[in-house]
Amino acid sequence: MIAASAPRSIAVVARRTPTKLSKALNYPTCSATCIGLRPFVVIQPIQPLASRRDFSSTSSHPKITEFFPAKETERVRRTPAAWPHPIYTEEQMRAVEVAHREAKTWSDKVALSAVKILRWGLDTATGYKHNKPMTAYHYLKRNLFLESVAGVPGMVAGMLRHLHSLRRMKRDNGWIESLLEESYNERMHLLVFLKMMKPGPFMRLMVLGAQGIWCNALFFAYLLSPRTVHRFVGYLEEEAVITYTRQIQDIDAGRLPEWQNLQAPQIAIDYWKMPEGHRTMRDLLLYIRADESKHREVNHTFGNLDQKEVRWPVAYTY
Amino acid sequence: MIAASAPRSIAVVARRTPTKLSKALNYPTCSATCIGLRPFVVIQPIQPLASRRDFSSTSSHPKITEFFPAKETERVRRTPAAWPHPIYTEEQMRAVEVAHREAKTWSDKVALSAVKILRWGLDTATGYKHNKPMTAYHYLKRNLFLESVAGVPGMVAGMLRHLHSLRRMKRDNGWIESLLEESYNERMHLLVFLKMMKPGPFMRLMVLGAQGIWCNALFFAYLLSPRTVHRFVGYLEEEAVITYTRQIQDIDAGRLPEWQNLQAPQIAIDYWKMPEGHRTMRDLLLYIRADESKHREVNHTFGNLDQKEVRWPVAYTY
Repeated sequence: MIAASAPRSIAVVARRTPTKLSKALNYPTCSATCIGLRPFVVIQPIQPLASRRDFSSTSSHPKITEFFPAKETERVRRTPAAWPHPIYTEEQMRAVEVAHREAKTWSDKVALSAVKILRWGLDTATGYKHNKPMTAYHYLKRNLFLESVAGVPGMVAGMLRHLHSLRRMKRDNGWIESLLEESYNERMHLLVFLKMMKPGPFMRLMVLGAQGIWCNALFFAYLLSPRTVHRFVGYLEEEAVITYTRQIQDIDAGRLPEWQNLQAPQIAIDYWKMPEGHRTMRDLLLYIRADESKHREVNHTFGNLDQKEVRWPVAYTY
Repeated sequence: MIAASAPRSIAVVARRTPTKLSKALNYPTCSATCIGLRPFVVIQPIQPLASRRDFSSTSSHPKITEFFPAKETERVRRTPAAWPHPIYTEEQMRAVEVAHREAKTWSDKVALSAVKILRWGLDTATGYKHNKPMTAYHYLKRNLFLESVAGVPGMVAGMLRHLHSLRRMKRDNGWIESLLEESYNERMHLLVFLKMMKPGPFMRLMVLGAQGIWCNALFFAYLLSPRTVHRFVGYLEEEAVITYTRQIQDIDAGRLPEWQNLQAPQIAIDYWKMPEGHRTMRDLLLYIRADESKHREVNHTFGNLDQKEVRWPVAYTY
């Protein structure tokens, strides 16, 4: 396991036991993984020792892309965004806080439990803990995976409401476009992270499998109880705001050296119209966190509203 | 059958045979339907005799709504359109012509045959013929039904491309928003026609059934061969342009008295930003026909493009 995640530069200074190493580097190490092996000391701690389980077991070195080439071809030209993103101010983005909408009804509790179980599962699979240091690489992988699944609920909900509106011949009152724009926004987050990291084959396999299950589950859940699904997405976005807040705090505390001076990719600058001088990784995370908080608000609001706002009649009567 | 579609005002002047009646009214009558009954003469030809089969067999009088009350409530307020419609000029709309994109490949021919078969089926079921006079009521019913199914292909295609982009982690290059906006546009057409006519229970049943079959068929067809589906939608829109052109010609020739001075509903004026003095039914049809021609162009273009524009890799490799 240690060989699978060998740091880029290693120098043997002395053999030390895990506990002394952890004190030296100020990182906790998980002795359970060091099955009979003593770690080497890392002089240049580009990447901590593999004391946590990598989500993508096939990766042996970070695939972080730090250079973003501008790439226009004959066939691909830049056009104005079909759905322009609203302009966020710095104050608005800084004001985003971790928040929780209390679970009141039975459907709220079902939604909250589902989110908690999913979070626990992913955290366990990836070795994530709130009080354990994370590297930029691990954050990126987590973000990449989660944004690929985040684009699904809005699309499924928007499509189902669209089909309902067509066959019931009733107005929809603006839900459809909000939901479709939410899914588009999540997909933009994915494309931004893709500029920074290329997923390995194992990650791709996980994404394929996750979408297959996730898409169908949401589809049927939305047919059964749209209110629960909106509440569920609201709680999911609460978790997203928590994680992104943590990433921003880690940058501020200097725990993510790779991100300290990293500039946002051009696709992000164009999409959010990031002003000059505010195009760092930290600013990017502020924008993304603000988007997630907006989705949190919108889905909780949709969960509060009467789902039959379109006044769907009983079948065959008017 | 004649009793089911009794005209609003009837006066018996004299009994005449179908052929003399047809000469008197300058309408062809279908003698096959007059099973042993001799039609009465209609003094005020609000609606021609029921010599054609009504699509909705339960309707006994036109449900055309001619008054459009403004209706804002506490809970439903007007907001700017999420996806504003581009402004069409009068010249652009008048320049729309009936056109046909030649079927070159095997998939083109499959698509064209499918459209021809569907058109033939609907025309037969509704008694529509290109050289037979149609009333405003029949046009409205046809438009209402067709716009309820027209909103499906764009949504299905957009959703599938969105899911593809997420799980393959590849850019989409603008197809998704175009397709989703197409479906939104078709739904707006439906809502406009709904302001003018309330569908009966039979029509609603047909719409429900059609969506069930249509949605699933398009879903699987798009997975199998997206190119064929785009070509199919292109040919479908060609037929829509033909029918709307015919409606406009009928208004110009004075054959649709109900529509001669009818004003467009407020929802249409707001959506297309119809200028003052250009808010008649004829203008509305010009806008709708222009939309259909735009969908025709977009889908034929998508059908021409390399469907793998997103450079989808083979599963699990990069």
